[in-house]
Amino acid sequence: MTKQDKSFQADAGLGKALDLLRQPTAQQQPLPKSLTAQGIGEEAALSLLAPYVFGEASYLDSPTALAHMDPPTPWITWATSLWNARLNQNLLHPATAPFARQAEEIVMAWLAPWFGMQGGHMCSGSTLANLTALWAARDAGKVDQIIASTSAHISIAKAANILGLPYKQVATNAMGQIDPAKVSELGDLSNACLVLTAGTTATGVIDNLALVGKAKWTHIDAAWAGPLCLSEKYAGLLAGMELADSVAVSAHKWLFQPKDSALVMFRQLELANLAISFGGGYLAAPNIGVQGSRGAAAISLLATLLAWGKGGLAQRIEQTMSMSHTLAEALQQETDVILLAMPTTGVTVFRPTNISTEQLYQRLPAGMLSTCIVEGEDWLRSVAANPMADMDKIIDAIRKALP
Amino acid sequence: MTKQDKSFQADAGLGKALDLLRQPTAQQQPLPKSLTAQGIGEEAALSLLAPYVFGEASYLDSPTALAHMDPPTPWITWATSLWNARLNQNLLHPATAPFARQAEEIVMAWLAPWFGMQGGHMCSGSTLANLTALWAARDAGKVDQIIASTSAHISIAKAANILGLPYKQVATNAMGQIDPAKVSELGDLSNACLVLTAGTTATGVIDNLALVGKAKWTHIDAAWAGPLCLSEKYAGLLAGMELADSVAVSAHKWLFQPKDSALVMFRQLELANLAISFGGGYLAAPNIGVQGSRGAAAISLLATLLAWGKGGLAQRIEQTMSMSHTLAEALQQETDVILLAMPTTGVTVFRPTNISTEQLYQRLPAGMLSTCIVEGEDWLRSVAANPMADMDKIIDAIRKALP
Repeated sequence: MTKQDKSFQADAGLGKALDLLRQPTAQQQPLPKSLTAQGIGEEAALSLLAPYVFGEASYLDSPTALAHMDPPTPWITWATSLWNARLNQNLLHPATAPFARQAEEIVMAWLAPWFGMQGGHMCSGSTLANLTALWAARDAGKVDQIIASTSAHISIAKAANILGLPYKQVATNAMGQIDPAKVSELGDLSNACLVLTAGTTATGVIDNLALVGKAKWTHIDAAWAGPLCLSEKYAGLLAGMELADSVAVSAHKWLFQPKDSALVMFRQLELANLAISFGGGYLAAPNIGVQGSRGAAAISLLATLLAWGKGGLAQRIEQTMSMSHTLAEALQQETDVILLAMPTTGVTVFRPTNISTEQLYQRLPAGMLSTCIVEGEDWLRSVAANPMADMDKIIDAIRKALP
Repeated sequence: MTKQDKSFQADAGLGKALDLLRQPTAQQQPLPKSLTAQGIGEEAALSLLAPYVFGEASYLDSPTALAHMDPPTPWITWATSLWNARLNQNLLHPATAPFARQAEEIVMAWLAPWFGMQGGHMCSGSTLANLTALWAARDAGKVDQIIASTSAHISIAKAANILGLPYKQVATNAMGQIDPAKVSELGDLSNACLVLTAGTTATGVIDNLALVGKAKWTHIDAAWAGPLCLSEKYAGLLAGMELADSVAVSAHKWLFQPKDSALVMFRQLELANLAISFGGGYLAAPNIGVQGSRGAAAISLLATLLAWGKGGLAQRIEQTMSMSHTLAEALQQETDVILLAMPTTGVTVFRPTNISTEQLYQRLPAGMLSTCIVEGEDWLRSVAANPMADMDKIIDAIRKALP
């Protein structure tokens, strides 16, 4: 006899969770100060939490949200996240994830060729994807130092620290692109891993990809701009990427996936996998990559790719790119605004001339823009990750906020 | 004007996703061979995928599933995973996750004291939690080697490799517990990190926690057995844990959470955080830990703790512990079975005497048990992670499969 624990069964409360998502209630009741001895039950817990979860959230699909490299997510990924939580498959073990593992293979086979890579695996974010690639660079590529520009993401410095490798930073031009002359000055790169950034955090610029192949191992941190290769219109921006040894891409950025979803890909997959695999003899399949047990993020990505096709994905990327051009062109008309440069990958950076950047930031609706530092100066930054943004409203709000 | 992209809005198809979850359809249609140019739309994509996702899944809540350290998940976590996917908050940035960050602080404040720790953070699995702790041991604890038993999880060897630290393995007793005499023989541990396992992968045994504090840094990999500290009945098994420097626990194991959910906790939180924080000046809040952008797993855990309370969680842990005792007692009655030992943390290991372990395994329903290797010999292994298991059915199936 088994005790049928209703907490583990599809319950009518799931419908209520959907109702709360569609029409969140506002009235917050206090949360307990510590872990209570007795619970309040599932439905009461959802009712108690909903006003916090939905009431104190950042709405990435708001018409005025164009601030961060965090997109809203298509509802099909909400549905598949529900499915994933229900099944709780473990990608580590073939026995506990028969189709979920296959889904990851499918997604990788569909996507890796566009990046010029043989294949790879998914992991929980691009910081891990970068760490994984640099781990492979150290152990498969036998590099003994990591080189990147001063505009590279902090995850590169972090990976170098974790891996115990010396980290050299190279100066950039005013836009934040690595300076090829400074790379040449470093001399012999035959034991170095050169990290190029495709879409820097601050200005979204892409490093000169003619540098790919100049070092023993070239890794491209394409966390932000990588998906542009799926757009015929913009793929040229990433020409040369196919010669890199590894590429990291955040699926939870421009592939519109929920958090904890990234791709790490290698040009020579077997070579890389050999260096980053553990427990071949112990597990039914070797544990490849930094993580062990992990979930089925691939199912959400597969669902999105099925629903949209390459065309639907490219259309949304191109639409957000066009939003950044619209914004930049409008800002060019303003006499009291300096535009750093025309955006190349959806990131528009500007500042006011009559008030401080911080003052203008404070006058704008919350979540509309973010700030960044370029060459020691404060700038406003807009990232076009939200296909639901209303550019008229955003441009209007900026105009009204200018003195 | 904004184009209202219905792919990003709560759609009637969400109800269909719930229907497919409750009553999966069986008929599989072929999946495309490559990324198609045009998509088929969200509802068609869900209908196409459901027979694969649900038809080729491992059902962890099956009455006969008692094989792996992978539990079924309570439905409240399916609901919150839906919410998390919809909001896509980024725990890295206060601005993009106002309540989600607070939820993690709440969960940590509620749980860490039970483990004797000051606090910590969540990450995508215990492999990352172990890596994070050993990174802190290296850089805050200034250790220059890692020591663990031959029964330690492969993530410890992997972390040592990634961190570039020498890794020493110590012999165990027949049950797989680290041999304290062999630890003493190592001599000076004043620059070493000693990793003790609370719930080994193979047999679920807990290392002798009297060894905590014998090295410069002691880390407890409590991925599996850590949550026992929330049960008054079993907390004593973990006595001494509170003196460790760091503890890693998988929330997606005995805390019944969906995948990609773990806790890394430290006794001296500030000391540890200093060593594993990056970008203090660049981000609004420093990026603590291995990951960068990450999702709101804490909301699912908070919802579960609210719904169940400490009592409800402890009751389910104790219930599964009792399942393993029931199984072991039944196996003791069988003359053709050798029980390795009485289970201490829900892991029951045994083998048949008249046929091979593999033969018995093949005769049992798929997903009922797993296999493991202890001292070079093959054994059958049952892990009591499924509160929905039917012990009568499981014991009956084993009896029928024995020759």
